[in-house]
Amino acid sequence: MTKRDISMAVIRRLPKYHRYLSEMMERGVDRISSKELSEIIGFSASQIRQDFNNFGEFGQQGYGYNVQDLFREINTIIGLDHTYSVIIIGAGNLGGALANYGFQALGFDIISLFDNDPKKIGKSLSDVEIRDINILETYMSQQPIDIAIITTPVHVAQDIADRLIISGVRSIWNFTPKDLVVPEDLIVENVHMVDSLMTVAYLLNEADGAVS
Amino acid sequence: MTKRDISMAVIRRLPKYHRYLSEMMERGVDRISSKELSEIIGFSASQIRQDFNNFGEFGQQGYGYNVQDLFREINTIIGLDHTYSVIIIGAGNLGGALANYGFQALGFDIISLFDNDPKKIGKSLSDVEIRDINILETYMSQQPIDIAIITTPVHVAQDIADRLIISGVRSIWNFTPKDLVVPEDLIVENVHMVDSLMTVAYLLNEADGAVS
Repeated sequence: MTKRDISMAVIRRLPKYHRYLSEMMERGVDRISSKELSEIIGFSASQIRQDFNNFGEFGQQGYGYNVQDLFREINTIIGLDHTYSVIIIGAGNLGGALANYGFQALGFDIISLFDNDPKKIGKSLSDVEIRDINILETYMSQQPIDIAIITTPVHVAQDIADRLIISGVRSIWNFTPKDLVVPEDLIVENVHMVDSLMTVAYLLNEADGAVS
Repeated sequence: MTKRDISMAVIRRLPKYHRYLSEMMERGVDRISSKELSEIIGFSASQIRQDFNNFGEFGQQGYGYNVQDLFREINTIIGLDHTYSVIIIGAGNLGGALANYGFQALGFDIISLFDNDPKKIGKSLSDVEIRDINILETYMSQQPIDIAIITTPVHVAQDIADRLIISGVRSIWNFTPKDLVVPEDLIVENVHMVDSLMTVAYLLNEADGAVS
């Protein structure tokens, strides 16, 4: 079975399984039933069994799941059994925070930051060199990039995306409050922080019993 | 009609309307039909009409929506017509990036950062003072907090959340890769960046035709 059959809803639950199984391994848990997993992770037991059945038979009737095996399977399914070349466009506060976040430990190899500020170019953030945005295309012609993270000001985000796409980027992790226009088959994952914060505001307002 | 009737799916579309209407106002667009809005924003015209109908009658048959009026309505519905007191726990790279992001312009008043690092305490990031995490409870007893942003290391996130809750925080914007255990009625919005990045990895892997 190819992974193309898997729905985005299932895909978005995988990192959570990864996280909880990793914690269990650290605590020395050897095996777990879907019922126990359900109580910890908050998805229903049948949801969990269904999710895992998408990828094959992991559990054993009356035994449950071997935590280590299951973790390894999920790790492979997500694609964390190999590494990814990552660049960050925008060496500001957020770019620096992401360079320093520790994604490397998961196999995301942040190999360069790019910026247009002469004061930053040539320096490093978390041991990652900041390069001139003007050489982006040259750099990418020599070095295939799996993931480009955009943390630029919003008004240049689309231009940067266009340049990344022409240069053959495989996916974009977009931190700007902008819905990028990209070819249909390009992978774009948005972290629209402002949208998320506005949701908090709405819910606070709702809790106050505001009437529209 | 109270806002309690509105589904999370609708609520999560509101910031996007806010963003696109704001852009249109900047471009000097006076009015727009649901069909035109649909082409720009990517939701169907009937979806858009349905969403707005949740909050009252905004449009006019054959005229469409007045962009400025609609923007103002959405702004009020989200709750951006008043301000929120915000603190950030964790004055690291990410905390600094969030302090500097510009949320203030939207009415999110970031009034303090907190950290446990003596080298940081007393200093400022983006004009926001970094205070000792030890005085969190005292600070909050004098200053009601609407939103606490957690950007601490993951292993202290739950402890910080517990302290915030006891101190009367109204909502938590959680940037740690941890599902916080909180009272059912507390508002928690997660930005699980690792989960988002893993989704990118999965989709890259899938595009490679990996078979599970």
